[in-house]
Amino acid sequence: MQEGSRGPVLAVDLGGTKIIAAAVLPSGKIVSRNYCLTLADEGPEAVINRLLSAVNGATAKAKLKTSELTGIGIAAAGILDTEKGIITTSPNLPDWHDVPLGDILADRLGVATYLINDASAAALGEHRFGAGKRVDNLVYLTVSTGIGGGIITNGKLYSGANGCAGEIGHMTIEAHGPQCNCGNFGCLEALASGTAVAREAVRRLNQGETSSIAQLAEARLETITAETVALAARQGDHLACDVVTKAANYLGIGLANLVNIFNPELIVIGGGLSKMGDMLLEPARKVVKERAFQLPARTVRIVRARLGSNAGIVGAAVHTFEQQLDRNTEA
Amino acid sequence: MQEGSRGPVLAVDLGGTKIIAAAVLPSGKIVSRNYCLTLADEGPEAVINRLLSAVNGATAKAKLKTSELTGIGIAAAGILDTEKGIITTSPNLPDWHDVPLGDILADRLGVATYLINDASAAALGEHRFGAGKRVDNLVYLTVSTGIGGGIITNGKLYSGANGCAGEIGHMTIEAHGPQCNCGNFGCLEALASGTAVAREAVRRLNQGETSSIAQLAEARLETITAETVALAARQGDHLACDVVTKAANYLGIGLANLVNIFNPELIVIGGGLSKMGDMLLEPARKVVKERAFQLPARTVRIVRARLGSNAGIVGAAVHTFEQQLDRNTEA
Repeated sequence: MQEGSRGPVLAVDLGGTKIIAAAVLPSGKIVSRNYCLTLADEGPEAVINRLLSAVNGATAKAKLKTSELTGIGIAAAGILDTEKGIITTSPNLPDWHDVPLGDILADRLGVATYLINDASAAALGEHRFGAGKRVDNLVYLTVSTGIGGGIITNGKLYSGANGCAGEIGHMTIEAHGPQCNCGNFGCLEALASGTAVAREAVRRLNQGETSSIAQLAEARLETITAETVALAARQGDHLACDVVTKAANYLGIGLANLVNIFNPELIVIGGGLSKMGDMLLEPARKVVKERAFQLPARTVRIVRARLGSNAGIVGAAVHTFEQQLDRNTEA
Repeated sequence: MQEGSRGPVLAVDLGGTKIIAAAVLPSGKIVSRNYCLTLADEGPEAVINRLLSAVNGATAKAKLKTSELTGIGIAAAGILDTEKGIITTSPNLPDWHDVPLGDILADRLGVATYLINDASAAALGEHRFGAGKRVDNLVYLTVSTGIGGGIITNGKLYSGANGCAGEIGHMTIEAHGPQCNCGNFGCLEALASGTAVAREAVRRLNQGETSSIAQLAEARLETITAETVALAARQGDHLACDVVTKAANYLGIGLANLVNIFNPELIVIGGGLSKMGDMLLEPARKVVKERAFQLPARTVRIVRARLGSNAGIVGAAVHTFEQQLDRNTEA
């Protein structure tokens, strides 16, 4: 097989908390892996320097030289102009505005660099090597602090005019709902993300409701996360179960919209909240059955992602291989 | 050009009010056109017989024999299983459930028949011969009694797993909003369609508000349609302007969702309400700027459709030519 003769690419997952760099083969196999903290507060220059160190570390671990790399794929959250390699805005990187990361890395490393939205990367990863193998039409959602999305249509990543398609988390599902971090109101992310779950739990605790969430957080309400709520819900806590179900119902409304719009074979749910499993997915599936049209609702399977925290780097690698293939075909 | 050597196909727009049949050339040129009333109340059998008469009429007008036809394309509203040629459900054809129209017509006429959702057909028509020429990624909305949609991604009609993708009108944008004809709540269609506009005007008139709408309808509130409201709004009637702006704002929320999800170059608005022009589109464009991400909001153009009532038949013809081409390529 021709692919086998190609060497690894370097793939980076530039997250809000940490930067993962890895050398990845065309088969999806991760040859080496390296990570460091993002420390986004220190601003773009410092983060880019740490990213370069992480890349160099992963390259060295894989016993490669930078000159042997054929490309670097970078998965990052936010609105990216992938054509131009620019991070326009990113929820995880608050000081980043129109940062030409592609050009900067290409300059510093002398290697072609391909930017991709992190959820699009995860969609690609899951499609090629995870839950979505042998499926033509797939929508991927990462439900975590925020909600991101990636879309596979007719077997290919759909990226739109600027490469920033797939912002499923910022689909309004409650026109007069709470304001989202993006400035819009009633986004799916504002109602069904980890942030929304934690905020709703804290709101209800502040109203005087009792719950084991407070004990788990040792009464420090500001430390409550979606994980705390999930833990309490698994222990049968009433308020926690209620909050999770409410978020799951909103997630279901978002999924029903996607089912009506995309009529996909598969919806894949990744991200931290997907670890709740059926506690999150069963109510969501039920809402899809109630709200979406029967034919597409019967067709779609709604499943958990398989690649876990590797989805981003695997997808960034897949994207890089495909971009190189496209360029070679065009040349 | 090879296309020029191919003969016309027969295209049918099976609407709730009338059935249009036409012979259409690969260039999009309509050679003959024939129509009759649908009279959907009479049930599937009667409607199918009238459809056959309309087809025979259009064939004869084009001086063709049925045996000379290479295919028939049928555009119809509703959830269609296009792979199997089945009309699953249709808002315009209340008695139609799982009607295998494709097989029935193929049997009766001896010609290959291709079913396509009417809004998908209009999307194809506008993409090839209307407002969307030379655009890769386009979302089409028909805003009429209901709201339908069609999606072009990477230059091709996106139809999903069963061929029923594009149900944009049934995207929930107000989770606790009014119930829609589809059974779901807070659909775009329930808030921004012609039906929604007329219902909201009547509701406010019934609450005792004064408006020239009542005079235009000669105080028979049950005769008020979106057209009555649009006419009053053009004359500066306060209530009418208010109702149209409210619907336009909801339309804008739906469009903002599509901008964030699809990052398209173009959104094309057809259907009866699009005749309101900027009265409807300007508030909607403003909402898109406020609610969607900047990069995709700057990229997208939101324009009126160009093909008018021919979009469905032209699109059904394009679809038929493409299906034939696909089959020939596969063979």
